[in-house]
Amino acid sequence: MNAKEVREVVRAGKWTSNMSGAAPGYVVCNLVVLPNSLAKEFLIFCLRNPIACPVLDVTEPGNPEPTMVAPGADVRTDISKYRIYKKGELVDEVIDIKALWRDDFVAFLIGGTFSFEKEMMEAGILLRHIEEKKTCPNYITNIRCAPTKNFYGPLVVSMRPLAKEHVVKAVQISSRYPKAHGAPVHIGYPELIGISDLAKPDFGEAVTVNPEEIPVFWACGVTPQTVAREAKPEIMITHSPGHPIIIDLKLHDIALI
Amino acid sequence: MNAKEVREVVRAGKWTSNMSGAAPGYVVCNLVVLPNSLAKEFLIFCLRNPIACPVLDVTEPGNPEPTMVAPGADVRTDISKYRIYKKGELVDEVIDIKALWRDDFVAFLIGGTFSFEKEMMEAGILLRHIEEKKTCPNYITNIRCAPTKNFYGPLVVSMRPLAKEHVVKAVQISSRYPKAHGAPVHIGYPELIGISDLAKPDFGEAVTVNPEEIPVFWACGVTPQTVAREAKPEIMITHSPGHPIIIDLKLHDIALI
Repeated sequence: MNAKEVREVVRAGKWTSNMSGAAPGYVVCNLVVLPNSLAKEFLIFCLRNPIACPVLDVTEPGNPEPTMVAPGADVRTDISKYRIYKKGELVDEVIDIKALWRDDFVAFLIGGTFSFEKEMMEAGILLRHIEEKKTCPNYITNIRCAPTKNFYGPLVVSMRPLAKEHVVKAVQISSRYPKAHGAPVHIGYPELIGISDLAKPDFGEAVTVNPEEIPVFWACGVTPQTVAREAKPEIMITHSPGHPIIIDLKLHDIALI
Repeated sequence: MNAKEVREVVRAGKWTSNMSGAAPGYVVCNLVVLPNSLAKEFLIFCLRNPIACPVLDVTEPGNPEPTMVAPGADVRTDISKYRIYKKGELVDEVIDIKALWRDDFVAFLIGGTFSFEKEMMEAGILLRHIEEKKTCPNYITNIRCAPTKNFYGPLVVSMRPLAKEHVVKAVQISSRYPKAHGAPVHIGYPELIGISDLAKPDFGEAVTVNPEEIPVFWACGVTPQTVAREAKPEIMITHSPGHPIIIDLKLHDIALI
């Protein structure tokens, strides 16, 4: 299926599992929806933290269509699971946000690392969360994002345990896609970035890390959600971990070289 | 000084320290000199192990001039320290090989990792062996080179301890230079490639590895020497560790992109 076809299945409420591996070759985006009053500052935060928050599209207030990257899509329905936060607290998880949508809502589409997983797999790199059919594990680190007045907080990373022979290739492949979080932010030694136990991710699910495997960490699109939650906006809507939106851009459209 | 000027100083016998940092921006080469009878098989070995043995030039039998990469240079005099091996045993270390040169000698010039150290330093990456004025430490690994009939043996690696923030940048920079050993072969966890103690290198000198630093390993031009030594040729001449030849190519001449 192409991106549009997957979105149609999702829109019809027929996609419930996580999206890893759906529409391979297409770019996937994390979603953050905020009231327009916070949009400018949030955008500045993203610009100050381009590795964690590579913004691919910003919708017009009230318009749910990301016209730049997925014309015809609707951010209210084309994601298979959403999280609703009020004053920073998770209050609900829903499968569409039509009833919640407001005229002042702005949606940010932020490139996700799932985008380059297909290329990694084609290069022979085994991805454990796909193998184990789990949501990729995410961890809160001790690395601080560059703050704005109201938006600040730690970098959240995704982790993929890789065979030692695959680490460099994974760096090289992901380096080509800065708009999908790009190169890893850290390799090996989780404690050096404040992660004490790989078996206890802060988001997503733990995956097996075998003795001779090296944990590799990428900046994660959960970062802006976490940061925005700290700012305790009256309302914020995001995708649920593992449930990004698939856009019309293909991987080669965002490749650096 | 440019490459030619450095070679003239070396040729005059006036350069005795190691060559790290000499003629920055120029490519440096490791040297292997073998009798022509072994040249074809050694070249096949190099072709089978391109990361460890990126051949930049091969001289005509008896001719000490590497006409492709350093016209006017003389491999008998333009290296500051040579090692002489007979039947695989190190028998002497000398400052020129004029008296030993034979009509059937073939010299192989193999790109070295010193080549991209300047670019790393310009990118803010601290290199400990340069800081401590030591010869970069090399280690014999448990990774086997692809063999030929007579040439076989382990991969030898150089090690640079890097700040965790510099590891990915070092991969990206070195990836551009496959003719100078390219990207690392391993990152972190020395025991995974058979290195039990970083404080005890097999060649070169140990450098300080601070607690929060990550050891990064590149294939090393000492590999072909070690392998050729195992083949116990009647005679083999190499550069001494830390004493490569500087050729006329600049880094951008061998950059992949």
